Amino acid sequence: MIRERIHLFDTTLRDGQQTPGIDFSVEDKIAIATMLDEFGMDYVEGGYPGANPTDTEFFSRKRTKKARFVAFGMTKRAGVSASNDPGLTALLQAESDAICLVAKSWDYHVRVALGCTNAENLESIKASVEAVVASGKEALIDCEHFFDGYKANPAYALACAKTAYDAGARWVVLCDTNGGTQPPEIRDIVTAVIAHGVPGASLGIHAHNDTGQAVANSLAAVEAGVRQIQGTLNGIGERCGNANLITLIPTLALKEAYTSRFETAIDADRLQELTQLSHSFDELLNRSPDHQMPYVGASAFATKAGIHASALLKDPRTYEHVTPESVGNLRKVMVSDQGGKANFINALKRRGITVSKDDPKLDKLISIVKEREATGYAYEGADASFAILAQRTLSSVPDFFHVESFRVMVERRFDANGNLKTVSEAVVKVSVDGEATMSVAEGHGPVNALDLALRKDLGKYQSEIEDLELVDYKVRILNGGTEAITRVLIESVDGTGARWWTVGVSDNIIDASFQALMDSIVFKLLKNRDQAGLAAAE
Amino acid sequence: MIRERIHLFDTTLRDGQQTPGIDFSVEDKIAIATMLDEFGMDYVEGGYPGANPTDTEFFSRKRTKKARFVAFGMTKRAGVSASNDPGLTALLQAESDAICLVAKSWDYHVRVALGCTNAENLESIKASVEAVVASGKEALIDCEHFFDGYKANPAYALACAKTAYDAGARWVVLCDTNGGTQPPEIRDIVTAVIAHGVPGASLGIHAHNDTGQAVANSLAAVEAGVRQIQGTLNGIGERCGNANLITLIPTLALKEAYTSRFETAIDADRLQELTQLSHSFDELLNRSPDHQMPYVGASAFATKAGIHASALLKDPRTYEHVTPESVGNLRKVMVSDQGGKANFINALKRRGITVSKDDPKLDKLISIVKEREATGYAYEGADASFAILAQRTLSSVPDFFHVESFRVMVERRFDANGNLKTVSEAVVKVSVDGEATMSVAEGHGPVNALDLALRKDLGKYQSEIEDLELVDYKVRILNGGTEAITRVLIESVDGTGARWWTVGVSDNIIDASFQALMDSIVFKLLKNRDQAGLAAAE
Repeated sequence: MIRERIHLFDTTLRDGQQTPGIDFSVEDKIAIATMLDEFGMDYVEGGYPGANPTDTEFFSRKRTKKARFVAFGMTKRAGVSASNDPGLTALLQAESDAICLVAKSWDYHVRVALGCTNAENLESIKASVEAVVASGKEALIDCEHFFDGYKANPAYALACAKTAYDAGARWVVLCDTNGGTQPPEIRDIVTAVIAHGVPGASLGIHAHNDTGQAVANSLAAVEAGVRQIQGTLNGIGERCGNANLITLIPTLALKEAYTSRFETAIDADRLQELTQLSHSFDELLNRSPDHQMPYVGASAFATKAGIHASALLKDPRTYEHVTPESVGNLRKVMVSDQGGKANFINALKRRGITVSKDDPKLDKLISIVKEREATGYAYEGADASFAILAQRTLSSVPDFFHVESFRVMVERRFDANGNLKTVSEAVVKVSVDGEATMSVAEGHGPVNALDLALRKDLGKYQSEIEDLELVDYKVRILNGGTEAITRVLIESVDGTGARWWTVGVSDNIIDASFQALMDSIVFKLLKNRDQAGLAAAE
Repeated sequence: MIRERIHLFDTTLRDGQQTPGIDFSVEDKIAIATMLDEFGMDYVEGGYPGANPTDTEFFSRKRTKKARFVAFGMTKRAGVSASNDPGLTALLQAESDAICLVAKSWDYHVRVALGCTNAENLESIKASVEAVVASGKEALIDCEHFFDGYKANPAYALACAKTAYDAGARWVVLCDTNGGTQPPEIRDIVTAVIAHGVPGASLGIHAHNDTGQAVANSLAAVEAGVRQIQGTLNGIGERCGNANLITLIPTLALKEAYTSRFETAIDADRLQELTQLSHSFDELLNRSPDHQMPYVGASAFATKAGIHASALLKDPRTYEHVTPESVGNLRKVMVSDQGGKANFINALKRRGITVSKDDPKLDKLISIVKEREATGYAYEGADASFAILAQRTLSSVPDFFHVESFRVMVERRFDANGNLKTVSEAVVKVSVDGEATMSVAEGHGPVNALDLALRKDLGKYQSEIEDLELVDYKVRILNGGTEAITRVLIESVDGTGARWWTVGVSDNIIDASFQALMDSIVFKLLKNRDQAGLAAAE
């Protein structure tokens, strides 16, 4: 059976730029356009040349190799000819393969926002599309507010779409600009447009996520006949965002409801780069990836539940809607309060520790973990602390060194020049092989001072921990008040690039931090001896 | 026209607890159950009594007043009678109004995970439901893997649902456990279940967000006849999360496609508390609310400068799919500095401070706030700190007292009996009217010690702060490493029941805490003099 092609139109650089808090520089735009082009998008919309200096500069050159490079702008104003409209003229001169023109299709907005007649707006659409076609570029029309416009005045909305199509637009894109349209309405209205004479093969959908259904609305439009989807990387965009292409692409590629009928430019090999694409984009935005994002999130294939974990081990395929490998992601089974015995056995197995399910030490480990989790520990986020605890309970962990005592002091006072200054100092007394050493250090705050003092002199182990670095530190207060229970999570990294997490819990934040710091160092020493298990250090 | 009732089933405390990184304490669970109950959910599923100590303790009492309080568990094992199954017996003894039993409905899982025959599983469903009904509690069945099971063996999946219904289950809930089912499949399969004899009025939907369509799948099921929706607050849950009730509730209440036919327990008044509910829940989880969340996100009604902003000002209704007020959210137009200024004037007005928009002090306040927010302060969550800063900049704040210096020490050592002990001690030197006093206190951790020492002797103001209490303390690390920037938020309350929040930011957690503690005391003293503004103290 011949599968129909769904065209992917990325508007990360145009509508995505409307996201509150996101501002792309020209360099950002160049990097993102390259990502999109290499991944295999059919269209990359780059921005609105003429609207701001960044976009004008960005369109001074073509920025994609394979993908069609699209400039965005508005249809000509009423009352002037296309060749006399400065906005349209600038747009035609921008370096692009295609031009996407936004056109009003809700009569109310034609009157209020444009201040012209319905007929004048239709004429603007016709003349603008014809001007793009005459320039040799591909013409697309974004029918703004199409669905709300259709509900208010179906005949006029249809006339806008049909006028653009008849004038030669390759694509007529139906936009749910306000984002409130529901999937059944999308199906019905797309069906009406096709019945009115604009074929599905020339229709696109542009959905927003204001009711959390941008993906579903895009697929509902495809179901009704549309063959182009507009969306963004990770669903960025104005208000609640645009349709998330990172979710739509694997759904089209892997779900039987679509694979039997459709194909996109993204083949199975490319699809394996999806997680990487999503995370690289977040890196570029300097934000943490959403752990729960479909397909690509760190939690997308993570299982915590005991009842599922045991069966998951027997056959992962029946507990996963797609394989994590297909989108370049990983399976993750976590240890936690929720977990049953199978979870534990599996977690240990990944660390190279084999334990029989009848071993009484396993029951002891489970009860220690559950007890600790009840007091605030969270081992699912602290693989290295779990590995140490498991090893200590099931076999043993060497006593590398012993912290006899520590003292941390934070003092705020006026310095010699009369300036207020806060100094943090830590003193640590460590013994290695019965020999005690005292170290002192100042730091940015008490935890940093303690960390520095603790790692200053570990005797014969010192050279082993030189490449240990603490890269993240998280604090969570588990109940109210300044005497609350505090949970500290620390992320460490070493010269091999391995990363691990450790946890500490106490009503004293310094104590909690100390526990997590100690676990990190012990884990590093175990790791250096190949005793830390591999999974935890990945 | 009579509208049909859609029942809202919240599983935040059960399936939501499967979210990686989320662990509820018993206190958390009690607070969340109260929120859900007061908001008006029909069902609150509290957890799995017997599976872990937290849930067992939580079910020692009924935790809701109006909502049906639901315990979750499994159907009885094959080969034992319902009364001899210890899991089911424990479940029947938990304090709940209803019991939701998970039952396998995919023949593959019956064989692999349960290791029994298809007939035995049907018998377990029947006997378990009958045991719940006989106990006088309402019975619900979660048909696990229903949609995947139906695709593999339609007759058996249907038999599971029908058996539960015939045995007396009030609700048969069709679960898309792996989260990969598409909306058209949901519609078709729900239709088949109803045709098989389980009426829509007894059917529920439990959707997961693995393809970003949990909301759409829930609504597709409603379209096909289902009348109960299971979901969670803010869409937390295993892997990519469950259906987000915070999105579904306003969609059902405000979208014409549903309002004409359906109603829920959430009326227009309750709906205005939606944003508050969503944000309070995130506060409790100590995480930043998702700015782009439908309806309730800070960006959900935000428009960035551009083609829409000016038209939006002419008539906001045609650029918003619902009004922000309907869900307790706010419109935000980021047009210009002028718009920013109006925001400040309004914020000050709410505190009883009138300021002219041409006052240069207002420009100074705006630039201080913007500068501080760029370094990590968050005044939207710290009204009292904002009130103090505004008053200090626009007029003045009395110098009630002055902290000359402080010293905080945390020491871990062996006590006289050889036990490891951590002691936290703080010394504070305060001057009031030029007279210096030194106070010392021990506490649970350094911040608590500092708090106690600071409030031990404020001279003539001491009697005024006796009823001041710190009720919550939150720490957020704003970037990585133990030398990270730390933001501390403190919530205070006094004898009048007034609550206020203060903020401190520093690379030293003690310094950040000190700033927030100081602001809290100063605010209390201003408040006692009716100078603190009313809004901030509400």
